Amino acid sequence: MNKRIQELIAEMTLEEKAGLCSGKNFWELKGVERLGIPSIMVTDGPHGLRKQEQGADHLGLFNSVPATCFPTAAGLASTWDRELIRSVGEALGEECQAEGVSVLLGPGANIKRSPLCGRNFEYFSEDPYLSSELAASHIQGVQSQGVGTSLKHFAANNQEHRRMSVDAVIDERTLREIYLASFETAVKEGRPWTVMSAYNKVNGTYASENEWLLTNILRDEWGFDGFVVSDWGAVDERVSALRAGLELEMPSSSGLGDHKIIEAVKDGSLSEEVLDRAVERLLTIILRADGSKKPNAEYDKEQHHRLARRAAGESMVLLKNEDGILPLGKNSRLAVIGQLAMQPRFQGGGSSHINPTKLDIPFEEISKLMADSGSVTYAQGYKLEQNVTDTALRDEAVAAAAAAETAVLFVGLPDRFESEGYDREHLQMPDNHGELIEAVAAVQPNLVVVLSNGAPIEMPWIGSAKAVLEGYLGGQAFGGAAADVLLGDVNPSGKLAETFPVKLQHNPAQLNFPGEGDRVEYKEGIFVGYRFYDAQGIEPLFPFGYGLSYTEFAYSGLMVSRSEMTDQDTVEVTVTVKNVGAVAGKEVVQLYVRDEKSTAIRPDKELKGFAKVELQPGEQKQVSFTLGKRAFAYYNTELQDWHVETGGFQILIGKSSREIVLQEQLHVSSTAAVRKVVTRNTPAGDLLEDPRLAPIFRDVMAKANEGSPFASMTEGDEGYEMFKAMMRFMPLRGLVAFNPEKFTEEMLNGLLTKLNSVE
Amino acid sequence: MNKRIQELIAEMTLEEKAGLCSGKNFWELKGVERLGIPSIMVTDGPHGLRKQEQGADHLGLFNSVPATCFPTAAGLASTWDRELIRSVGEALGEECQAEGVSVLLGPGANIKRSPLCGRNFEYFSEDPYLSSELAASHIQGVQSQGVGTSLKHFAANNQEHRRMSVDAVIDERTLREIYLASFETAVKEGRPWTVMSAYNKVNGTYASENEWLLTNILRDEWGFDGFVVSDWGAVDERVSALRAGLELEMPSSSGLGDHKIIEAVKDGSLSEEVLDRAVERLLTIILRADGSKKPNAEYDKEQHHRLARRAAGESMVLLKNEDGILPLGKNSRLAVIGQLAMQPRFQGGGSSHINPTKLDIPFEEISKLMADSGSVTYAQGYKLEQNVTDTALRDEAVAAAAAAETAVLFVGLPDRFESEGYDREHLQMPDNHGELIEAVAAVQPNLVVVLSNGAPIEMPWIGSAKAVLEGYLGGQAFGGAAADVLLGDVNPSGKLAETFPVKLQHNPAQLNFPGEGDRVEYKEGIFVGYRFYDAQGIEPLFPFGYGLSYTEFAYSGLMVSRSEMTDQDTVEVTVTVKNVGAVAGKEVVQLYVRDEKSTAIRPDKELKGFAKVELQPGEQKQVSFTLGKRAFAYYNTELQDWHVETGGFQILIGKSSREIVLQEQLHVSSTAAVRKVVTRNTPAGDLLEDPRLAPIFRDVMAKANEGSPFASMTEGDEGYEMFKAMMRFMPLRGLVAFNPEKFTEEMLNGLLTKLNSVE
Repeated sequence: MNKRIQELIAEMTLEEKAGLCSGKNFWELKGVERLGIPSIMVTDGPHGLRKQEQGADHLGLFNSVPATCFPTAAGLASTWDRELIRSVGEALGEECQAEGVSVLLGPGANIKRSPLCGRNFEYFSEDPYLSSELAASHIQGVQSQGVGTSLKHFAANNQEHRRMSVDAVIDERTLREIYLASFETAVKEGRPWTVMSAYNKVNGTYASENEWLLTNILRDEWGFDGFVVSDWGAVDERVSALRAGLELEMPSSSGLGDHKIIEAVKDGSLSEEVLDRAVERLLTIILRADGSKKPNAEYDKEQHHRLARRAAGESMVLLKNEDGILPLGKNSRLAVIGQLAMQPRFQGGGSSHINPTKLDIPFEEISKLMADSGSVTYAQGYKLEQNVTDTALRDEAVAAAAAAETAVLFVGLPDRFESEGYDREHLQMPDNHGELIEAVAAVQPNLVVVLSNGAPIEMPWIGSAKAVLEGYLGGQAFGGAAADVLLGDVNPSGKLAETFPVKLQHNPAQLNFPGEGDRVEYKEGIFVGYRFYDAQGIEPLFPFGYGLSYTEFAYSGLMVSRSEMTDQDTVEVTVTVKNVGAVAGKEVVQLYVRDEKSTAIRPDKELKGFAKVELQPGEQKQVSFTLGKRAFAYYNTELQDWHVETGGFQILIGKSSREIVLQEQLHVSSTAAVRKVVTRNTPAGDLLEDPRLAPIFRDVMAKANEGSPFASMTEGDEGYEMFKAMMRFMPLRGLVAFNPEKFTEEMLNGLLTKLNSVE
Repeated sequence: MNKRIQELIAEMTLEEKAGLCSGKNFWELKGVERLGIPSIMVTDGPHGLRKQEQGADHLGLFNSVPATCFPTAAGLASTWDRELIRSVGEALGEECQAEGVSVLLGPGANIKRSPLCGRNFEYFSEDPYLSSELAASHIQGVQSQGVGTSLKHFAANNQEHRRMSVDAVIDERTLREIYLASFETAVKEGRPWTVMSAYNKVNGTYASENEWLLTNILRDEWGFDGFVVSDWGAVDERVSALRAGLELEMPSSSGLGDHKIIEAVKDGSLSEEVLDRAVERLLTIILRADGSKKPNAEYDKEQHHRLARRAAGESMVLLKNEDGILPLGKNSRLAVIGQLAMQPRFQGGGSSHINPTKLDIPFEEISKLMADSGSVTYAQGYKLEQNVTDTALRDEAVAAAAAAETAVLFVGLPDRFESEGYDREHLQMPDNHGELIEAVAAVQPNLVVVLSNGAPIEMPWIGSAKAVLEGYLGGQAFGGAAADVLLGDVNPSGKLAETFPVKLQHNPAQLNFPGEGDRVEYKEGIFVGYRFYDAQGIEPLFPFGYGLSYTEFAYSGLMVSRSEMTDQDTVEVTVTVKNVGAVAGKEVVQLYVRDEKSTAIRPDKELKGFAKVELQPGEQKQVSFTLGKRAFAYYNTELQDWHVETGGFQILIGKSSREIVLQEQLHVSSTAAVRKVVTRNTPAGDLLEDPRLAPIFRDVMAKANEGSPFASMTEGDEGYEMFKAMMRFMPLRGLVAFNPEKFTEEMLNGLLTKLNSVE
């Protein structure tokens, strides 16, 4: 332990120590003036700073200091670009320094179990590998500026519905492979200063009081060395939470939590060592934060806005582009339609809601980029605050569309449709948006749809649009970025970080979402996102990893550095990507791994690597990946460890999860000793499949079957297949049950002893 | 207790009593000669008698006394005809009497969880209501002849893979609503003399040793009063099994089981009362069987064959009939193609395999029914024992088809594709069958496909056939019945008792079938069969309840006898069905119930009634159903009871599960006192929804929120939706956490006491 911290703890009174374990108010920690322990400030994130103005409402929802609003995580994730996300993180860190904020409350690494979750726009992906890699980059970016992050909401906070009381019931393998995995790399590689515990229960215990999560997994297994802070108001029993590993209760409990800690120490039900350990962890971060402060820091608002514009451009996913209608000609006649082109929806509701430094208006930005010979008109088309069609606005829009060469419709989800606090109940846009698309399509075949939404929507109108550009919630520069992409200044390179289903019902969580009362069972298990659509054979509207470009990329030369390896080795995978189109562009190379055969239930394939490359026309680059044990492993709950089952694996290189372009085979051998005890109920077939045991067992069987009418059966005989199966599945006790004259219980016990003693 | 039985038990030695608890040999129980206790015989069923000839192999698989082979349960279920199935049962009972058999080992009421299960042809349905109703009719039919049945395999034996060692892990609600429900009515209404325990484990305990299943559910809840017999070789620990409620171990354990029972009684680990109770149950049935024997019974083989032909005809499901190509003209030129037209597959492999009294050959039966001016040719088309196309046979068949007016192809699954003992791994026919269809379709658009298979297949060729007739495994008279239906002597009226998926991957069990090692988790829960396809929005190839006719039926006049009821009342539902076509026919009227809104997860709809009616052209009949509590209830594991949640229900009348033609609404009120204790973690919204508690809570909230910036928010204000949701989901402890100055822990505790004391 740091000597200064040690001394501080020694000098602190019980009351001061307990006091440090909860907030001073809504956004500040307590300090201890007499000891020089400073009070530090935290604020909401994760894609922008939400620092409350003096005198604002205490949640600070509506009035915060202006800050750059970057695309929300759903958009950032679509970039699949670690470097870009790190840059955004750096910018966020700079803004925190400028505002005296020590910890930014983000990023969120919860998995998008259901597209209905109201807070999905704040999360990265349905895939834990992608989510955790990007969260790590975000954390590294922010923290490079001497500002902490709070990786949230740990764990399994995958719905807003009853989020403060619901119990997420999830089997351990699913937790390990999906929900915890999404935090694991973010913790191990990102090394966040703090982790925020979730509101909900996990398998019966509040996340804030869950020792298995907060201590066993987070600290002991993953090596987390910061402090754990509760989500605001997430603490139920303060003392249990402290014991489980939750150091900081937020916001202030007005002394209530402190009092409970003090009483517990006094009555002996809580060891003071537990409190000291918590204080040590808190002081470590508090002092680090204090030491990292840059008192007169400023940031360049314009530069951050340009970064926001770049990030928004790279976030956009081109879903459809029939006849290459995009990019639009700068000298064409455009009708820009939809209120969202004038009042863009660029962020989500709730704790992440930001007061932007400036705001790009899509219609204006498009106008700016047009050539003099081009023209742009605007029609409102619908009222954002209404769901029903305003026929006058619709007709006006239809007329504008008919008069133009191309109609560009800005539609999506209004604020009230998705927010922190509640989940959606369907995946539809307001009726007036869909009806407008159909009405415009009836007069104008050159129809481009630009979407603003934090999570997937159904697109029953997709056949009516020539192009669809998914803009997600693109931050304050969404308008400029949309103009860049629509008019070809930026070549879209975003890829979906989540599946877009044809309809909500197809979603894997649908049968069990949002649960019954305060219990939600994750019965789909590991089959989340594309893992489900693949396994259940359901065609998505747009698959995970999908996204078009204005150019084309060709893949070749897939090489796997070895054809055999053990689970202790690594393997290098290289592949060459070439831009075979006419314009520069970026491609996301995706690597998936498929276990060819397994006794464990496994997904068809899982993402285990990705890289984003920029290529000029005609240029090619080699991309490399290194795969180790985890790329091939599943979590074996019996072994309580990651385990690779010996056998063949396929290395798949894809343009998306559904467009695999190259593949190679690899054999991986396990070095783990997995030994099953043979019992009277072990099926005979298991022994015959085990090269160590088969010879012994065959001898016994031959004797036991002597004279049986089946002994002489051969393939093709009537009933042979059934006989073979019966033998294969017969427990060893069947030797006795079906043939007690020849095979006694004693012989069976002898056989078991013999089989179990084979080395 | 019967006095004679009481006396017998008193006179029996410990050894005699223990001896009665296992078989004398493979098919006979022990008797006690000195006391006049007879030895009775049991044989395999369920759709025909499989009595072993003297000297045959001891499983009796290949040589049994000739018996009428009726359609297997998959086919019988497609009749949806309780009366017909009862008649088949009576015929089976007659044959048992003629052969001196006291108990027929069937019917099987296992649910078709996956179409892959090798034994599905022996089971009725994916729906527990349909399955249990039909099993009850089967049992009543057999037992009306003084012959017992053995309802099997109790419970959750839904796969053959590792069937003797696998543990079926199923939540209680799913067991109650699906897997046990399929046995429940069969036990309560059918009153089988015996029940057969399954090979597998259920939630960790072998079904044969599962006291919860064999005693708590079967006897205590359902009132079963016969004896439980093990599936052959299913007993692991004999004494545990006896204690759990398994009276009879089969087959003989050569004294091993008896010895264990004797030892356990002697050493005091098993109370002799448990043994006496088992003996009492055994004697009850043994004496009943003995007293019911008809020594010189005979049966009319021809009459039974005619019944088999009728049953097979009613089993067939007309899946497709484009251009009304069926029925075929008796004076047309037909090419009958496919080896299955000459060597029909009419039953499945395994313990139900029968030596039929006679066998209809489809080609011959068709020929017999043709008019003189018609003609029929035959071409083999493929080799049944091969999967690959024999090009010579194919070409010959194509030529025959080209030369005819209509080609009738008999294709399906050969014996090796489905059997007791092992599961299928795909839903495909052999390649040579599908290829033949396509080859014939290329020259002959008038193509009729007749299928012989025990369970669903994929039909990638469906677009090439004008008609498809599903024949299932139609028993020995399948050939005659196929001729009847094809040529219009019988109007098909079968309806699918299971969903035919477009592809195997769509099946709900697919993600968890057949499990990992010796553990299979039923994670799809209650979403089995159509419940899943409905909920997950997956279009089946043919839905549950589907089947065409040569006539048309119109529905009208749906009446529900009351618009409101309690869960203690019943309601009458009547509907009128009219034959509006030109030929006589039968219709299966299906009644489904939908819970409009529930806090419990419920299927979209569930079958709760069905009736088969025969109608002449122009004739109409009124059909009535009585619905009580169970029609609206789900199993509430907290209450440990069936529970109807107060609210609206829809009564749906359908031609199939996907073709609802009429519907009415009904309000059902619960009479159960469901009282939830209010705790500090109860969300505020729950109180506001409870008319008893809302006023108290509103008062408290108003005071606590005084002066809050949120208190004055109204709809339309920015953030209002989120605020409303936050309040709704906030646990009561939040009153303290977010507002400790105004609301103390003591006040919270006082509030809880008050809320929980409201009557």
